[in-house]
Amino acid sequence: MIAALDLFEDRGYEETTVVEIAKRAGLAKSTFFRHFPDKREVLFGGETMAERVTEAVTAAPATATPLETVAYALDAVGREVFTPARREFIARRRAVIAANLELQERLALKGLSLTRSMVGALKRRGVSDLTSCVAAELGALAWKIADERWSDGANGDEFSQVARRALDEVQAASAMC
Amino acid sequence: MIAALDLFEDRGYEETTVVEIAKRAGLAKSTFFRHFPDKREVLFGGETMAERVTEAVTAAPATATPLETVAYALDAVGREVFTPARREFIARRRAVIAANLELQERLALKGLSLTRSMVGALKRRGVSDLTSCVAAELGALAWKIADERWSDGANGDEFSQVARRALDEVQAASAMC
Repeated sequence: MIAALDLFEDRGYEETTVVEIAKRAGLAKSTFFRHFPDKREVLFGGETMAERVTEAVTAAPATATPLETVAYALDAVGREVFTPARREFIARRRAVIAANLELQERLALKGLSLTRSMVGALKRRGVSDLTSCVAAELGALAWKIADERWSDGANGDEFSQVARRALDEVQAASAMC
Repeated sequence: MIAALDLFEDRGYEETTVVEIAKRAGLAKSTFFRHFPDKREVLFGGETMAERVTEAVTAAPATATPLETVAYALDAVGREVFTPARREFIARRRAVIAANLELQERLALKGLSLTRSMVGALKRRGVSDLTSCVAAELGALAWKIADERWSDGANGDEFSQVARRALDEVQAASAMC
């Protein structure tokens, strides 16, 4: 949410109140809390990411290997969340999060919860528990690498291209361990 | 720290103050804050885990593969932290953490920081960046699995045995992805 990000950048996350964010966004405080349970959540957009990932894993072709299935999830994230139009917002958000411990903690927990969603969706495809866990962890690592490379924006590649390359590299590296 | 854990169990994490913890442990509040930057930290024991892991990775034989090196780190954790005498404390701590979002967030961040320490130590052994990341993530997953199985305590195996088995399973699963 741009209004919150502007304020966090201008005067710091700690010093910004929910009332100020709501006012800047033209919302009543009660409306704010209907969308976000707390101030931190405004940067993370609720549970939509986990839903996208779960849907994409569920919809992947039955013949896809676990890591190919993860690649479909990364495609969906690129198509629907990490779009070219949002690249700048996401890079700015990254900088705000890096400056605040509370936000780093929330991000860390979000990451775990996203990985758990991916594990659950893979298991429902009949992938074994442990292979689901490993595929989701390798996918999360590829995601993180892709996120860094893509936000950097040195080349104009779309997120899904960057992510699929990262996933290939991660898979190759896992054979070297 | 047992005094803190007792209080968190008795009256909840939120309702317990640092003054109460310090009093129960027979410490001055200022002494408490010399050891722990905040109330949450009392359950996580500062940075000692990251140091143990880094030392063990550094001391592993030069011929060890990345995952064998990770296994040496898990051995050290079992020898020095997850000892049979601490099994009950760790199981109780796990239950307290599971009941509180703030503690889950801190644990998530600790996990990330531990993985980062492992990555750094592997890179200093000359392992490539990406292989270090993958080995550390697979190690972190094996650690999590081992922690669950070992705290459960159904059999009397030591942490390092449980962890090495989990690491073998994780490695085998990564070939199935």
